[in-house]
Amino acid sequence: MPTDFSFEVKARDASTGARLGTLRTSHGEIPTPVFMPVGTAGTVKALPHEWLESLGAGIILANTYHLYLRPGPERVERLGGLHRFMSWQRAVLTDSGGYQVFSHRDLRKISEEGVSFRSHLDGSSHFLTPEKVIDIQRVLGSDIAMVLDDCTPYPCSRADAEKSMELSMRWAGRCVSRWQAGSVGSNALFGIVQGGVYPDLRARSVGALTALCPDGFAVGGLSVGEPKSAMWEVLEATLPLLPADRPRYLMGVGTPRDIVRAVALGVDMFDCVLPTRNARNGCLFTSEGRVLIKNAACADDRRPPDPACSCLTCRRYTRAYLRHLYMSGEYLSAVLNTMHNVSFYLDMMCKIRESIAFKSYGKLLAGMEKWPE
Amino acid sequence: MPTDFSFEVKARDASTGARLGTLRTSHGEIPTPVFMPVGTAGTVKALPHEWLESLGAGIILANTYHLYLRPGPERVERLGGLHRFMSWQRAVLTDSGGYQVFSHRDLRKISEEGVSFRSHLDGSSHFLTPEKVIDIQRVLGSDIAMVLDDCTPYPCSRADAEKSMELSMRWAGRCVSRWQAGSVGSNALFGIVQGGVYPDLRARSVGALTALCPDGFAVGGLSVGEPKSAMWEVLEATLPLLPADRPRYLMGVGTPRDIVRAVALGVDMFDCVLPTRNARNGCLFTSEGRVLIKNAACADDRRPPDPACSCLTCRRYTRAYLRHLYMSGEYLSAVLNTMHNVSFYLDMMCKIRESIAFKSYGKLLAGMEKWPE
Repeated sequence: MPTDFSFEVKARDASTGARLGTLRTSHGEIPTPVFMPVGTAGTVKALPHEWLESLGAGIILANTYHLYLRPGPERVERLGGLHRFMSWQRAVLTDSGGYQVFSHRDLRKISEEGVSFRSHLDGSSHFLTPEKVIDIQRVLGSDIAMVLDDCTPYPCSRADAEKSMELSMRWAGRCVSRWQAGSVGSNALFGIVQGGVYPDLRARSVGALTALCPDGFAVGGLSVGEPKSAMWEVLEATLPLLPADRPRYLMGVGTPRDIVRAVALGVDMFDCVLPTRNARNGCLFTSEGRVLIKNAACADDRRPPDPACSCLTCRRYTRAYLRHLYMSGEYLSAVLNTMHNVSFYLDMMCKIRESIAFKSYGKLLAGMEKWPE
Repeated sequence: MPTDFSFEVKARDASTGARLGTLRTSHGEIPTPVFMPVGTAGTVKALPHEWLESLGAGIILANTYHLYLRPGPERVERLGGLHRFMSWQRAVLTDSGGYQVFSHRDLRKISEEGVSFRSHLDGSSHFLTPEKVIDIQRVLGSDIAMVLDDCTPYPCSRADAEKSMELSMRWAGRCVSRWQAGSVGSNALFGIVQGGVYPDLRARSVGALTALCPDGFAVGGLSVGEPKSAMWEVLEATLPLLPADRPRYLMGVGTPRDIVRAVALGVDMFDCVLPTRNARNGCLFTSEGRVLIKNAACADDRRPPDPACSCLTCRRYTRAYLRHLYMSGEYLSAVLNTMHNVSFYLDMMCKIRESIAFKSYGKLLAGMEKWPE
């Protein structure tokens, strides 16, 4: 697949599987491990682009499913593609929509050909196929596109997980074919490893995907309700099977502590709604753990949310004021809380990269308990 | 009343009553005519302080009634006063709460002593007197405090308007007495002219207030549903009666066109929820009139909201993207729309001041129809 996209591993940690790398896209170079703030509908909720840029965010995630339903790919195309539509000139990864269809279980029906579903917005009927999902992402012009996959819930029997994984792999094949048949694009296509909590199914999934030779490999279908131990078991078994020269993306994970641990296993890319969604619910990630801003203890607290943080929110505002904004249901509550949480996550990724660069990631990993869970 | 507050008329227009002035407060000098963005609960809804500062806003309005109920004056005092609580180091005018109590008619009861009401938040009972309203505003530490007034609805009989105005004037007297009895403060106290749509009652109100010698004069009780013609009749009769050396503040008014017209009558200060509330409802003020961002015509429109505007929103975002944000119920919709509307209002005030400085305000006034109504 000829693309402007490339990935290079620049350094490896001395004692863990952590690695430092660079993703090259036509919208900038991104150092890895990287956290991609979630911008489902073409906006990282409550966070102005200007502030996101000031935090050094090099890539965000947008959602094919949501953008397909609203404003629609034809409209985005007429408006010059997703970057111009959003006025965001850094990189964008588009999730395929498999997970979103999976989230609205009662609204969808899966067949070999694809997935039919009703819009969560207006109930209208839609049918997405692997080919169509690729076509949409080409039109959006995202820097990294994802294959369409079927995401199994937890719990899920081995037989069901196997059937689902095999369907996902056939869909991945159709996605890659469609991708290769298209005009030479500047964007990349990632495959998604499935197989539930069954390491042998995951291994087969990796085998099938590797044969398709996508630009990168995501691990999907985790963080869907399974015990954390099952997630780590799957990751520890699966990650070493992935080609070492391709980026590895752990979808939808996770807490700061999860990310610290997953980096040690060689994960390069993350996305998660936690920092943004928790911000809107008044839960702040700090160097002292989670701070629930609505707690009465914050009412007279003149300290910043996180004394160790230098984000715009922490430089200027007190917990007392942020609590007042939250209790008053003010927009600014979501804005300032999101600014801090995204800053916390991106700062954490900086510290992680620095630690790998010094080949001392084992030390950061050993202090894992210091990070919010 | 010894205060750090002062007002100076610097220039008068050649052909209208418009005047250029400076309000001096212990939180900065403010050129007039000035528009004060409304920050009811200690935040101009959806607009980060940083952006408000970048627009050159020198003074905002906060609300005694809302801050009294939440977070409460004792808490604000413990946190170092309103400016420190909000982390806003420019000037703040606090409205007294009379209008808010008036807005919740079914929850309040007025007597000679004061007003009893139930909180719109939790139904708790409260009793505010003119003295208490002054004490609260001293504790908040606003740069300009307002007397407690009784605001009559429209329509209102002459007899009721007279009774209400006389009560407001007795309350104003009690406010001034309490103010004078307090320690020397750095803030100012403004009286509020009442009297409904009856010019003779307004004149008597001005007479009563002038005797009390407050730092400034507000005209209240307008823009409460009366025909515009009645408002202009009252203003044209009332404004010339006010002392020429004191600032004149027209409360709760209005549209851009209203402001242009009121400045010509000698008004120095304005506040209004229109730019902020309309922004949240997707109505943008532009040099081409009002733009309703949800209109289908905006869906494919790559132009900025206002091609003549250089605000952050207009420099970067298209109507199409802003419509998408609005239709998707995204926080950023309120943030970017508010940024534009407040910018539009503050830019308009700049143009108004410039025009007075050149003694050519008559020309701006003659082109009044160009401004959104």
